[in-house]
Amino acid sequence: MDGSIDPKEIKEAWIGSLKTGGAQLGNLAPLLIEQVGLAGMPACSIENACSSSAYAFRYAYMAIKSGICDITLAGGVEKMNDLPRERNRYWLGVSGDVEWERLAGTNFPGVYAMMALRYMHEHGMKRERLAEVAVKNHKNGARNPDAQFRSEISLERALRAPMLAYPLTVFDSCPITDGAAVAILCRGDLASKYTDTPIRVIGSGAASDYLAIHDRKDLTTVAAAQKAADEAYKQAGVKPKEVDLAEVHDCFTIAEIMAYENCGFAGKGKGGELIKNGETEIGGKIPVNAGGGLKSKGHPIGATGVSQIYEVVKQLKGEAREKTRQVKGAEIGLTHSVGGSGGSACVHIFRR
Amino acid sequence: MDGSIDPKEIKEAWIGSLKTGGAQLGNLAPLLIEQVGLAGMPACSIENACSSSAYAFRYAYMAIKSGICDITLAGGVEKMNDLPRERNRYWLGVSGDVEWERLAGTNFPGVYAMMALRYMHEHGMKRERLAEVAVKNHKNGARNPDAQFRSEISLERALRAPMLAYPLTVFDSCPITDGAAVAILCRGDLASKYTDTPIRVIGSGAASDYLAIHDRKDLTTVAAAQKAADEAYKQAGVKPKEVDLAEVHDCFTIAEIMAYENCGFAGKGKGGELIKNGETEIGGKIPVNAGGGLKSKGHPIGATGVSQIYEVVKQLKGEAREKTRQVKGAEIGLTHSVGGSGGSACVHIFRR
Repeated sequence: MDGSIDPKEIKEAWIGSLKTGGAQLGNLAPLLIEQVGLAGMPACSIENACSSSAYAFRYAYMAIKSGICDITLAGGVEKMNDLPRERNRYWLGVSGDVEWERLAGTNFPGVYAMMALRYMHEHGMKRERLAEVAVKNHKNGARNPDAQFRSEISLERALRAPMLAYPLTVFDSCPITDGAAVAILCRGDLASKYTDTPIRVIGSGAASDYLAIHDRKDLTTVAAAQKAADEAYKQAGVKPKEVDLAEVHDCFTIAEIMAYENCGFAGKGKGGELIKNGETEIGGKIPVNAGGGLKSKGHPIGATGVSQIYEVVKQLKGEAREKTRQVKGAEIGLTHSVGGSGGSACVHIFRR
Repeated sequence: MDGSIDPKEIKEAWIGSLKTGGAQLGNLAPLLIEQVGLAGMPACSIENACSSSAYAFRYAYMAIKSGICDITLAGGVEKMNDLPRERNRYWLGVSGDVEWERLAGTNFPGVYAMMALRYMHEHGMKRERLAEVAVKNHKNGARNPDAQFRSEISLERALRAPMLAYPLTVFDSCPITDGAAVAILCRGDLASKYTDTPIRVIGSGAASDYLAIHDRKDLTTVAAAQKAADEAYKQAGVKPKEVDLAEVHDCFTIAEIMAYENCGFAGKGKGGELIKNGETEIGGKIPVNAGGGLKSKGHPIGATGVSQIYEVVKQLKGEAREKTRQVKGAEIGLTHSVGGSGGSACVHIFRR
């Protein structure tokens, strides 16, 4: 919903956060609820790495389906920029595998770089495809007033940027971001009270996977995201080709290419062709990350899942700010959220 | 349920934990699920201070009521004993108010001591009542094979123990504990497949409150617990006098006295009389913490909420180990879980 509502009508809240402010505040959810004048409302912190608030949304949705609440709130928040770099590195790092990856000296750029290299090896994909994802998302983010980076970049600049972990440059990586996002959900039959254009949740899928990538059968499939998407499609009764736009978890550009495949927009190994042919641009067959994605809109960890939902809901309502970013006539939208390097995932499908 | 089940029948999991192992592992829930051979199952960490796994249970219950899952898992875990004392103090401390309480130098014993002093001042209660709670809970814990402390204590020993924060001694306080607990829930109409004596969840209430106790109207009422209990009773359609036993959050002995009142077992200011008259002993009018409570069974933060549920379920099934601990003929049981000094709370009611 996006109409006006008396906050006291909301019955329960779920707040996704990794460790906002470096975890110097515990019991975060009741504190936030108190700060907005709603002390008393049940509220809880939800942590599932980068997919925290996507899970918060899933539970806010389940609570309504359960009949226990009519109106619920799913939010997310992360404050990262005022923390020392080492502290951020620590909090972020332990969301992946600690025993075999972090203690051996690798980090998220390293892990995603291994996935990217393996993908390029198996499917003969060029580095240019990764850079094209960055170029597209910066182009979209430049038109999004809510984006962290509002400047376009050239393919050449993306390719020549400082290397983080081959083949990923700084432009293949999302930034450090402060941010918050909230969605308010209500029972379907009450929606017309609050908005003229209700957006319905028609599918919610979730799954987990081995944290360490060496335990997985296939380095280039994010199995948790695949399972979550399959489940969401099944519940929604729609097929990937019916989806009009998607916000996917592009923490690194390779993640977006794999997301195309996990969401069924491209066959295995064919994700690179989708970006090459411009099919995920606004105006293309299946616009992806019209909001700029994590890459350009930013990635405030705990807030990202709900911020993707915000973008899809605005698009489905035809209310994307800066009209050149609007995906015309979109009726079905999908959000794809991944925790860590794929240890958890959550996919939602929405219909206008 | 407590019969045998193929773990693969479980569809989703919620894991309560404050910061197990000092938060050196992130993405805890998928990691735990992987370690028990169930990688792939959706799983998420739930954090609401000391009431974390009570909330995990609430969501596992909501998920079944929503129709999205038939069988769910709610667990909790905390590993505290191998951490440096300062690290534990930090993690525990920030679950209460940071800005006005922790940074001013007080801690949980200090906060609960203020509540106890105010309670004694308002209601003329003697310190002996607090010590009697400790004596009762140690007596019960001595008969619980799962308890951390299995020795009885005398009233004199409790009263003369080293002072933590007047009027609370070390025997008024729960210990530092390692532990884990799990509950498996299923749809009511499937229960007979797994057990001959199903225990039904008939009420689930939750609420939050101001984190800092100076913001609350009344120092001696845990308003979140009061609200949560009221909601649970309303859903269950039962009255406090119909409850046959309760496991309540006795992180400090004063908390148990306030819990008597918040759960409706005693009127305002009358909690002390209940313990004085032995009415919360096994065999009394309303046995409380027959399992030993946090005081004696232990308080592994994230696990405590579900461990209370384990005790109540075992009691309702007539399966409390060490038969002298069994509450005879119990049909309705209640669990009362509080986060921090009352920033959050969650109450469940069960019926055999």
